[in-house]
Amino acid sequence: MINQLLLPYHFQLYESAAFIQTVDAIRVMVVRGAGAIGAAAGFAMAQACLEAPAANYAAFISHARKTIEASRPTAYDLFAAVEKVYQAGLTSPGAAVTAAQELADKNASDGRMIGETGQHLIHDGYRIQTHCNAGWLGFVDYGSALAPVYMAHRSGKKIHVWVDETRPRNQGARLTAWELQQENVPCTLIADNAAAHLMSRGETDLVIVGADRVALNGDVANKIGTLGLALAAREFRIPFYVAAPTSTFDVTSARGSAITIEERDPQEVLFVKGLHAETGAITEVRVSAPGAEAWNPAFDITPSGLITGLITEKGVITPDRESILGIMRR
Amino acid sequence: MINQLLLPYHFQLYESAAFIQTVDAIRVMVVRGAGAIGAAAGFAMAQACLEAPAANYAAFISHARKTIEASRPTAYDLFAAVEKVYQAGLTSPGAAVTAAQELADKNASDGRMIGETGQHLIHDGYRIQTHCNAGWLGFVDYGSALAPVYMAHRSGKKIHVWVDETRPRNQGARLTAWELQQENVPCTLIADNAAAHLMSRGETDLVIVGADRVALNGDVANKIGTLGLALAAREFRIPFYVAAPTSTFDVTSARGSAITIEERDPQEVLFVKGLHAETGAITEVRVSAPGAEAWNPAFDITPSGLITGLITEKGVITPDRESILGIMRR
Repeated sequence: MINQLLLPYHFQLYESAAFIQTVDAIRVMVVRGAGAIGAAAGFAMAQACLEAPAANYAAFISHARKTIEASRPTAYDLFAAVEKVYQAGLTSPGAAVTAAQELADKNASDGRMIGETGQHLIHDGYRIQTHCNAGWLGFVDYGSALAPVYMAHRSGKKIHVWVDETRPRNQGARLTAWELQQENVPCTLIADNAAAHLMSRGETDLVIVGADRVALNGDVANKIGTLGLALAAREFRIPFYVAAPTSTFDVTSARGSAITIEERDPQEVLFVKGLHAETGAITEVRVSAPGAEAWNPAFDITPSGLITGLITEKGVITPDRESILGIMRR
Repeated sequence: MINQLLLPYHFQLYESAAFIQTVDAIRVMVVRGAGAIGAAAGFAMAQACLEAPAANYAAFISHARKTIEASRPTAYDLFAAVEKVYQAGLTSPGAAVTAAQELADKNASDGRMIGETGQHLIHDGYRIQTHCNAGWLGFVDYGSALAPVYMAHRSGKKIHVWVDETRPRNQGARLTAWELQQENVPCTLIADNAAAHLMSRGETDLVIVGADRVALNGDVANKIGTLGLALAAREFRIPFYVAAPTSTFDVTSARGSAITIEERDPQEVLFVKGLHAETGAITEVRVSAPGAEAWNPAFDITPSGLITGLITEKGVITPDRESILGIMRR
């Protein structure tokens, strides 16, 4: 895996030799992003199958499964991947490894398909706004929200991307801005607070974000701040798309309110990590009044009514129960 | 003045002995907040009158006036204060000093009146959300948005304040959280991104923000992010009040679109200043991909249609032309 905690300051691969280390990498966000979490969770489950003692195999992998599921509660790809690899693992460790590899491969091909489908929504000259990071760092090879952006750029369309910095963990500022630079896509960073103002000035043509979980009725759990962005997009009549492979669709959650929202350590709001402006060392600074308390929900729910369409690997659909059931059957 | 660049880490008074130093303090935000900027601008103008050579008095103070006006383009209190002190200064430097002192005193009494008027909107048990800092740091003695909060708290009402951190300069995290702590008002910091989510869960009863300029039709220029917050408040049917003395009302701006929005240095988005978690020194860190560009508007315009009422020193009014003209005549 790419160690995303060190990006964009250092590019370092992170190798996990053991189940428990992979789970920890998911929990502390060495690896992050719906698809990448799913792939990592699948491999973690496969590692557990390989490590399980023959005498206690079933109990060991069942416990391992619960450990992975407790690491990040909102990301649906994690649950779907663990389920698939666990089922394969009941046959043999080898079958689990094969299933995990297939999931990662599927994630990559889904990203390519989302890119090909979604790029038709991007016209020449478009200014696209995105939130958090749903590019190849968050997936395998392509990404969800950024896959159409990359495909449009490669096909020669002149585009510009507005990148929300995405507090509190700054995935936009650190990761998306970095990814877009690697791909030579012109982009400009904004404080999340500037998004509505930007839209009010008519400077955004299209919003594309990713998803951590899509409910049966089309409600979407995504990075905190997505709901506010969607409300602003509706106000200023800007199409608001969510790009996600169907592996992120959770038909067992009837609506968004059924989705558990992960709450993370308040320290993520109170302190910020960055590159020391003088020494260049990764440094943590307090950006809040000493003694202040904070609340830190990692995701919010955007109701389907605010979403123009869902860009999936099987095509673009409207965010409603019928369309979702239809595409899951295909 | 309190040096707000060092808060909340160090409390240090900042004494400005000369006109040009006071202007610089406004520009770099040693002093900030609508009312405090107005008071400082008034004193800067008075300093210019005291420093002006007799032989060249009129030209000197006219040039000084333009220099102050160029320091922060959006804050209307600045323009109103400079105008008043400049007119007095045409008579004599002594008259200018008196005018500047009167403006500062008026600012303090306006804050007290806003507090007394506004606290009736705050009921026992209310959870109030605010953005940026419109407390006594941003004014003289009381503040605008926080004055009703302080009065409600002192009168024994049990309240809780949700504080938006207010990127990119973190005035909420640094200043409002600190001010509320000094006043023993319970408060919790959130990332700006969490505001809509908080409201969707029904955890906010009332929003009060300040203003940097109020247009004749009731549109309000305030800290970037206010527009998004107002859109979320409307969606979740939460009363959204703007607290501002009538010195912030600019009847020469017919509507919000006539107001110049200050754009500040992109470095404010790309880098963050805070207290080094280990050494305790004020330290700047890069929080964005090296080479990334940013856009940094300091304010946005909230249309009057999203505002429940304006809390002024003369009472609460609806944000429309008739009410505003009426209150300006009183």
